[in-house]
Amino acid sequence: MEGIAIMTSGGDAAGMNPAVKCAVEYTIKKGFKPYLVRNGLRGLIDDKISEATRADVSGILHRGGTVLRSSRSTRFFEYEHRKTAYENLQKRNINKLIIIGGDGSFNALNQFYEDFKVPFAGIPATIDNDIPGTDYCLGVDTALNVIRESVDSIRDTATSFNRAFVIETMGRHCGYLAMTSALSSGAEICIAPELEYDLDSICKRLKEDCANGREYIIAIAAEGTNMAEYLTRWIQMNLDMDTRLTVLGHVQRGGSPTVRDRIMAYKFAVAAVDSLAAGNTNEIMIYKEGEFTGMPVHEVAGSKYKIDPDLIKLSAHLGK
Amino acid sequence: MEGIAIMTSGGDAAGMNPAVKCAVEYTIKKGFKPYLVRNGLRGLIDDKISEATRADVSGILHRGGTVLRSSRSTRFFEYEHRKTAYENLQKRNINKLIIIGGDGSFNALNQFYEDFKVPFAGIPATIDNDIPGTDYCLGVDTALNVIRESVDSIRDTATSFNRAFVIETMGRHCGYLAMTSALSSGAEICIAPELEYDLDSICKRLKEDCANGREYIIAIAAEGTNMAEYLTRWIQMNLDMDTRLTVLGHVQRGGSPTVRDRIMAYKFAVAAVDSLAAGNTNEIMIYKEGEFTGMPVHEVAGSKYKIDPDLIKLSAHLGK
Amino acid sequence: MEGIAIMTSGGDAAGMNPAVKCAVEYTIKKGFKPYLVRNGLRGLIDDKISEATRADVSGILHRGGTVLRSSRSTRFFEYEHRKTAYENLQKRNINKLIIIGGDGSFNALNQFYEDFKVPFAGIPATIDNDIPGTDYCLGVDTALNVIRESVDSIRDTATSFNRAFVIETMGRHCGYLAMTSALSSGAEICIAPELEYDLDSICKRLKEDCANGREYIIAIAAEGTNMAEYLTRWIQMNLDMDTRLTVLGHVQRGGSPTVRDRIMAYKFAVAAVDSLAAGNTNEIMIYKEGEFTGMPVHEVAGSKYKIDPDLIKLSAHLGK
Amino acid sequence: MEGIAIMTSGGDAAGMNPAVKCAVEYTIKKGFKPYLVRNGLRGLIDDKISEATRADVSGILHRGGTVLRSSRSTRFFEYEHRKTAYENLQKRNINKLIIIGGDGSFNALNQFYEDFKVPFAGIPATIDNDIPGTDYCLGVDTALNVIRESVDSIRDTATSFNRAFVIETMGRHCGYLAMTSALSSGAEICIAPELEYDLDSICKRLKEDCANGREYIIAIAAEGTNMAEYLTRWIQMNLDMDTRLTVLGHVQRGGSPTVRDRIMAYKFAVAAVDSLAAGNTNEIMIYKEGEFTGMPVHEVAGSKYKIDPDLIKLSAHLGK
Repeated sequence: MEGIAIMTSGGDAAGMNPAVKCAVEYTIKKGFKPYLVRNGLRGLIDDKISEATRADVSGILHRGGTVLRSSRSTRFFEYEHRKTAYENLQKRNINKLIIIGGDGSFNALNQFYEDFKVPFAGIPATIDNDIPGTDYCLGVDTALNVIRESVDSIRDTATSFNRAFVIETMGRHCGYLAMTSALSSGAEICIAPELEYDLDSICKRLKEDCANGREYIIAIAAEGTNMAEYLTRWIQMNLDMDTRLTVLGHVQRGGSPTVRDRIMAYKFAVAAVDSLAAGNTNEIMIYKEGEFTGMPVHEVAGSKYKIDPDLIKLSAHLGK
Repeated sequence: MEGIAIMTSGGDAAGMNPAVKCAVEYTIKKGFKPYLVRNGLRGLIDDKISEATRADVSGILHRGGTVLRSSRSTRFFEYEHRKTAYENLQKRNINKLIIIGGDGSFNALNQFYEDFKVPFAGIPATIDNDIPGTDYCLGVDTALNVIRESVDSIRDTATSFNRAFVIETMGRHCGYLAMTSALSSGAEICIAPELEYDLDSICKRLKEDCANGREYIIAIAAEGTNMAEYLTRWIQMNLDMDTRLTVLGHVQRGGSPTVRDRIMAYKFAVAAVDSLAAGNTNEIMIYKEGEFTGMPVHEVAGSKYKIDPDLIKLSAHLGK
Repeated sequence: MEGIAIMTSGGDAAGMNPAVKCAVEYTIKKGFKPYLVRNGLRGLIDDKISEATRADVSGILHRGGTVLRSSRSTRFFEYEHRKTAYENLQKRNINKLIIIGGDGSFNALNQFYEDFKVPFAGIPATIDNDIPGTDYCLGVDTALNVIRESVDSIRDTATSFNRAFVIETMGRHCGYLAMTSALSSGAEICIAPELEYDLDSICKRLKEDCANGREYIIAIAAEGTNMAEYLTRWIQMNLDMDTRLTVLGHVQRGGSPTVRDRIMAYKFAVAAVDSLAAGNTNEIMIYKEGEFTGMPVHEVAGSKYKIDPDLIKLSAHLGK
Repeated sequence: MEGIAIMTSGGDAAGMNPAVKCAVEYTIKKGFKPYLVRNGLRGLIDDKISEATRADVSGILHRGGTVLRSSRSTRFFEYEHRKTAYENLQKRNINKLIIIGGDGSFNALNQFYEDFKVPFAGIPATIDNDIPGTDYCLGVDTALNVIRESVDSIRDTATSFNRAFVIETMGRHCGYLAMTSALSSGAEICIAPELEYDLDSICKRLKEDCANGREYIIAIAAEGTNMAEYLTRWIQMNLDMDTRLTVLGHVQRGGSPTVRDRIMAYKFAVAAVDSLAAGNTNEIMIYKEGEFTGMPVHEVAGSKYKIDPDLIKLSAHLGK
């Protein structure tokens, strides 16, 4: 029987485990033999590959992170190591791969396909939500709800004093987490790469609000803007309010996957197995306008992520 | 200035409060005067209407239920009482309504429009997710995550013994909650109105699983199937396993809205105000294929809710 | 090296897993060889006993229920089966036992000691908090916080309507969960075995409150009083308020242990190993006036659980 | 009727709101007239004092922070301002005070007593748990459970890679939060003021563990040790493991109070009102060996906080 190997790669994200579980189960249903690769691309080279049973993936659905573990492998850039990886697959009759991760991982497997013609299907997973072509990446909903609980908790403290809080969310090049969190937690300021802001205008607005009784301020800044510390000092000086900075950090990555991340994981996994079963090569599964389809990896690699314009419209007032 | 009155009606759902907050703020932005109606349709008759300020809706974003309160009013079926409601609106120059609720509430306001030509925009909100035309109703994501935590908690107990648990979710005519919960919690059985099931086949499958080491069973049943008690006894007898029933009940309705319910609330509210501002009458806001649009209320009333066929496909094995 | 076998028995409770983990680690530290018994007393008979390593108990600290699993064994009542159990211990040089469970389990091991002189130390664990002699049993704090979140969730719905909710908590003979939950969630009524109540007086009080603006009622009833359904109808009729019943059920048992349950588990486990190491036989570890000590099992068996009188004093007004 | 004014002061802590609610209700029951002071000591000077009704404190039980708000007032150090505060109390016939806060606040009111003979009762509240004489301060249990959820979340990420995490908890002079969190989350390293540590020994231990299969490390450091950043670099270099730092920050202060914080709040509040009703002056309520009693403020001021020696014993191996 033909084998399909399933792996996670890149930064971990909630939803990876349910995707693995469903990929294994649906692979069996479609008549292939499922394999698990541990430690991401590094595991392909180091032969951490084993046949998967249903029992191997039972009880992982509600766990955060990835039980298959992940890695950032530089060896995979070298042909010699990729050749080893290929041989590890060959000896088990594994002819197809499913990879759950980000752009870097997809490109690595694309190169692998150029070398050895092993087709793969990619499932987008990153809490940054910045993979081109898809409206949703696994892990985002869980990260947003972890942030929400932290901001709700900080608000308790903020309202107990006359105090401002700047909260830094993850997001290197993409403000999706920051903007969505700012909106959904009712923040007064949001600083994100895609969002225009004008500190003078913000200052004027909040001075008026404070004059009208506003007693605390919540500001959200995306990590990638490098603005969190500056903003903290700026509020302290310009609005004359005791201001504290909280960097949420890796807390955002973890936590039991939300229902949305579990269901999206299932649907992405079914789409990935179907794509491979249909003989497609190197498609990234995308969720667009409510539908799941595949997109050639070179189109993903060749395009730039565009954030939901509605989100910018809804958040615009937080930068003014 | 023309007034828009905002109200909640029917069963409460998480997401109603963020929808109210955003509707008030966006109403102001679009140049109308916002009003709040307390106690649902009953409040229209009893004149529980007051102008809304930003301060009235601050600090409600993260609260479950509806701070405007709701009711089931039979008086609104009578013309005389509707006339009183109309006069209450007239004296404040309120010419438009936004109602956050379910079909019953939409139909009531449609009749009100027939009588007095006061247009309204409807925002679908019900944890049953069974309003025709829209893929999403406010409250569903929060309810699903409350159920998830309960099932995860019950699983701890189930795995500590050789034990089966039947968990009844809400859902009178619609199995959306039951099926989504069954999938996302890895249940072994799901009984829902839209799902075919065959107890003989289930029995055979689970007996095999138990022979292969399965030590506990989780079954999810939708309230509307009336099957939860029967299924409990059936598992006890046919699979010879100590079996307990848990009826989740009203716990499912409450809880702080998830990020998805907050963001969907914002987008629905913006769509509703825009619909009224554009001069549309009696549109229900719907979310379909990733887009927000309006649908005439008579189309909603004239059609039947159809559940996501992918969900049935993904869940089919839980009834076999 | 002398062996100590560790097991869980009776109803599962959060905190059992951290207790197992600490018992294993501290057993090693004190120079004994730790063993794990799976499936409770049944496992002693069926020889489900294995030596424990640190790795066996890593990653269990934050899990609800008991990974060692539990059972209710009737075979252990018979001498013949106890003899088998004894032989299973003998062949591994296991001379001491630690059991985490309730009175029934302690009495079973006391009989076992009468038969074969294998001393044990007991750690009280039951969400009912009704083991005589100790102020605290493992699992109680987690159960209370699960109930709190459910009641907070139901309150969202209650405040959205004019509505009363009756919530049934676990507790067969002991009202600890019900009273503590009623107090800590600000309920208006509490019905518990230890609490006097007078429905006429409650009716009078709440009618006055409703006249003064009270818009919803939360009532908590302990399972053991069998009053939840009656109370639901009674409120509906006497206070003329739409009233719903929620039976929390097994949701209360599960969930990741709270910090208190984890720390108490550690301290109980250290006390149990120390008790055995000191040569004591058949002591139940108790927490009393802020101290951990041991109490002979016959004293525990011979006394009756007495609820904290302060709790009754604080709750008294909820029955009047 | 004689008045009792109730206030919160110093850093906010979960449990302050239930303490305020119970203090008001029990003050009424004992025949006094309750008053609320907003904004802490600053509010005493600025006359932010109003009579309290039951309705004023309904619906605050489950809220984090303090609805009465707090402040750090330097004006209260000056006699002139204290005199103003005294006059504000006098004109309302307020002869007694209840203050919920830390040592600084207690000392301020002690000076106030020296000046004007207004007796007070203090309720210890600080997440640092470092007030001398009492085993428990309000807010600690909630803070510990917030930390627990963050660490459990970070562990998901840690186990997905070969990675170490250093997590900094609050605690300026006291390692209670850090040590309890390290124990209850199964951390491998703890750095706290009261705990001896030896990096060489830690290094040796963890190198062995890693050689035996350990794949990730969690370290907890108390803020007051200023060691978190150093430790992060140290692990990276000495254990050759990718290491990240997370500073939990103000997230730790907030969140809905746990059941323990709500119940302790009730008992402290009852003790405080009873102390004043009995004619005692300037007592701090303490929880010691399972009992609530009062301790003269000068004894509290004159002694040094001593951490639970059992906690040090249980944590000792985390510094070696």
